Amino acid sequence: MNRRTFNFGILAGAATVGLNKSSAAAQGREALRVNGARLNEHLKALSEFGKNPQGGVSRVAYSEADRRGREYVMSLMRAAKLDVSIDAAGNLIGRREAANNDDRLLPILFGSHIDSVPEGGNFDGDVGSLGAIEVAQTLAENNAMLRHPIEVVIFQNEEGGLIGSEAVVGALTEKELDLVNKSGRTVREGIKFIGGDVSKLTTVKREKGSIAAYLELHIEQGGTLEAEKIDIGVVEGIVGINWWDVTIEGFANHAGTTAMNNRQDALMAAAKFIEAVNRVVTSVPGRQVGTVGRIQALPGAPNVIPGKVVCSLELRDLDAAKIQMLYQKIRTEADQIAKSSRVTFSFKDLNANIPAPTDPRIRAIIDSSAKELGLSTKLMPSGAGHDAQDMARIGPVGMIFIPSIGGISHSPKEFSRGKDIENGANVLLGALMKVDRI
Amino acid sequence: MNRRTFNFGILAGAATVGLNKSSAAAQGREALRVNGARLNEHLKALSEFGKNPQGGVSRVAYSEADRRGREYVMSLMRAAKLDVSIDAAGNLIGRREAANNDDRLLPILFGSHIDSVPEGGNFDGDVGSLGAIEVAQTLAENNAMLRHPIEVVIFQNEEGGLIGSEAVVGALTEKELDLVNKSGRTVREGIKFIGGDVSKLTTVKREKGSIAAYLELHIEQGGTLEAEKIDIGVVEGIVGINWWDVTIEGFANHAGTTAMNNRQDALMAAAKFIEAVNRVVTSVPGRQVGTVGRIQALPGAPNVIPGKVVCSLELRDLDAAKIQMLYQKIRTEADQIAKSSRVTFSFKDLNANIPAPTDPRIRAIIDSSAKELGLSTKLMPSGAGHDAQDMARIGPVGMIFIPSIGGISHSPKEFSRGKDIENGANVLLGALMKVDRI
Repeated sequence: MNRRTFNFGILAGAATVGLNKSSAAAQGREALRVNGARLNEHLKALSEFGKNPQGGVSRVAYSEADRRGREYVMSLMRAAKLDVSIDAAGNLIGRREAANNDDRLLPILFGSHIDSVPEGGNFDGDVGSLGAIEVAQTLAENNAMLRHPIEVVIFQNEEGGLIGSEAVVGALTEKELDLVNKSGRTVREGIKFIGGDVSKLTTVKREKGSIAAYLELHIEQGGTLEAEKIDIGVVEGIVGINWWDVTIEGFANHAGTTAMNNRQDALMAAAKFIEAVNRVVTSVPGRQVGTVGRIQALPGAPNVIPGKVVCSLELRDLDAAKIQMLYQKIRTEADQIAKSSRVTFSFKDLNANIPAPTDPRIRAIIDSSAKELGLSTKLMPSGAGHDAQDMARIGPVGMIFIPSIGGISHSPKEFSRGKDIENGANVLLGALMKVDRI
Repeated sequence: MNRRTFNFGILAGAATVGLNKSSAAAQGREALRVNGARLNEHLKALSEFGKNPQGGVSRVAYSEADRRGREYVMSLMRAAKLDVSIDAAGNLIGRREAANNDDRLLPILFGSHIDSVPEGGNFDGDVGSLGAIEVAQTLAENNAMLRHPIEVVIFQNEEGGLIGSEAVVGALTEKELDLVNKSGRTVREGIKFIGGDVSKLTTVKREKGSIAAYLELHIEQGGTLEAEKIDIGVVEGIVGINWWDVTIEGFANHAGTTAMNNRQDALMAAAKFIEAVNRVVTSVPGRQVGTVGRIQALPGAPNVIPGKVVCSLELRDLDAAKIQMLYQKIRTEADQIAKSSRVTFSFKDLNANIPAPTDPRIRAIIDSSAKELGLSTKLMPSGAGHDAQDMARIGPVGMIFIPSIGGISHSPKEFSRGKDIENGANVLLGALMKVDRI
């Protein structure tokens, strides 16, 4: 028989609770499972808060839709028998103590976010948030006690720069508090709006080594899992992200009177640069990406040769050294374009997120949890940023990906299948219980 | 001796006036010359109206600087013994009747404009305007009577779309009257502001065949004359200008999670397009030019793959068929880029100016006038638009170019040498008198 029992260590693993649900037993698999139908219903209900007429959701942090969505989430947390609080940074915390309190056993955190980009979808953040609450509810309904306290965390304003998790790891800056997002509020105003208290931000900070682990379920936001027909992505780390502002200066001149061979056209040089970025990034094996997403040509008139172009450059990879290597190659190409096009290039370093590897033991736990459920897995980087990358500063983290249909994200067309969502939550549940035993 | 006399035909060329100024006589050249020092002083005085702190001038049509500059110009016209009026379109007209009125002899018009682009220079338009007034003053001071009436015309708002000359040829549209320029005024409001009367615009229109000729002195605005050390450009025509809005649609997606080979990056396609425009335009001999001057990538964030790009395309040439041939080649290249980059291209035809050839007889007259002054000449297109292209619809036109240092125009760095300005005005004077004899 392939039947197994879960060992829930209570007080240094002394006791063992045998779970034996008949339906699961009939499948010869792990007994404890989330209620996938309920989870998908909750996701549907959450999608009403900030629903766009044309589909998808605009539940930007600190908007009224965000506040009402959070109230709904808190009601779900209470139904899952969690002790709900809003921390001073505005994060929602749903805590459940261990049966036998032992201060030596650190809390296991898991969760995600429910804020969206403007005109976003209903899966980015929501799946991991409601998936975490569903896991807690499943534990509560089964009276399954864990060794460690658990905390479901719904971080606030993930899309605006991982604001909530930055506060938790003590990385939120005064400058960020003054950022204004599409809600029209600053982060400072927004925190008050959602029930936090900026004057007490220091109380939110958790020290390195103060958590047992942080687990996050999330949609992939890329197309790899769907294309390769894989059920679960085991995230090996969250890529580092480097941003530069690139300024190209040529000479603005009359588009009618300046002969083609007499031009110092900054946009022509920018075109060559954009192609060079693509060429360099794809010239070496690996999953690194490079993007020019923003561009402005000045003065920007159809009848004036552009004298100046400002564009963005973004490079992402799990390996910071590889990002630097690609950047140096791009600089070399830019130097050549500068010479041949008689323009100058300047690069301004903007903020960089360093790569955040996940914990190897938790990776293995996620992988085995998935396989025990009969699910296929793939080790992969997260190209997107997540609150988990902040949490990696203070403890071991793990991330579980489920497929995004068509790889579409940050769009009303974002979609993940109900079954994949249920699978992801079950992997989270299984991984949580394995981590609890460590 | 190389001495010659000018024949000013009065009433069907009956009388001849011999001009014999001693200084000119000493050089063995034409007697009648403009006062170059005075002309350059007038240009300096005009440069005060709308002067930028950092150099150059912002004398945008319908601004207070424009109105005061026009008052100054009218004072110069009066000093040149011209009968000054403001027509209903706001153009300044300085008329001098022929000595012996003969309705069969049509007026010879010459002039330019004094409005500038924002942060423009002190030569584009100004040289031709004050050069024309200097010619009139020279004639007045020498009591030189012409067979034809003459009219110095300072067209209003050349930079905003040849508005004043469009009114004269009956091409000004209602839509254009509602355009707002950097003065903050609509053309309609601006015409009132500078003393015109929109309700009487029809009175301004001149029929085809109602003028003997229109002559315009202007700076080249390109670098050809200076580079080739030529004194005078004889303009063979004003190029046709075609504009398109080009829209490239790919698919916006997450820049971190979308693999390089899975992108439909509209900006990458735009980069290839910009290079293709340059390649096509430079692939055939000739002086055609092609420019992408404006570009917008949407959504325009550093971390989002651009899903859409809108950019401008401008093509100019003396030959409308050549413009169409280049455009078709560009469309073919765009089709190929669309396929290889998995994007779509659409082209929206915007207004086009058809090429406006100058009158062959007037070209020859300008050329010989310059050579008689010992000046070198070159037959060349005007890559820039000018009021002369409108005037070509109603009568024979000719244009005289002088060198622009470094080919810089529409910039505070725009510059033409005082001696070249004097040369240009003398060629205008010589050409005017030859045209008068036709």
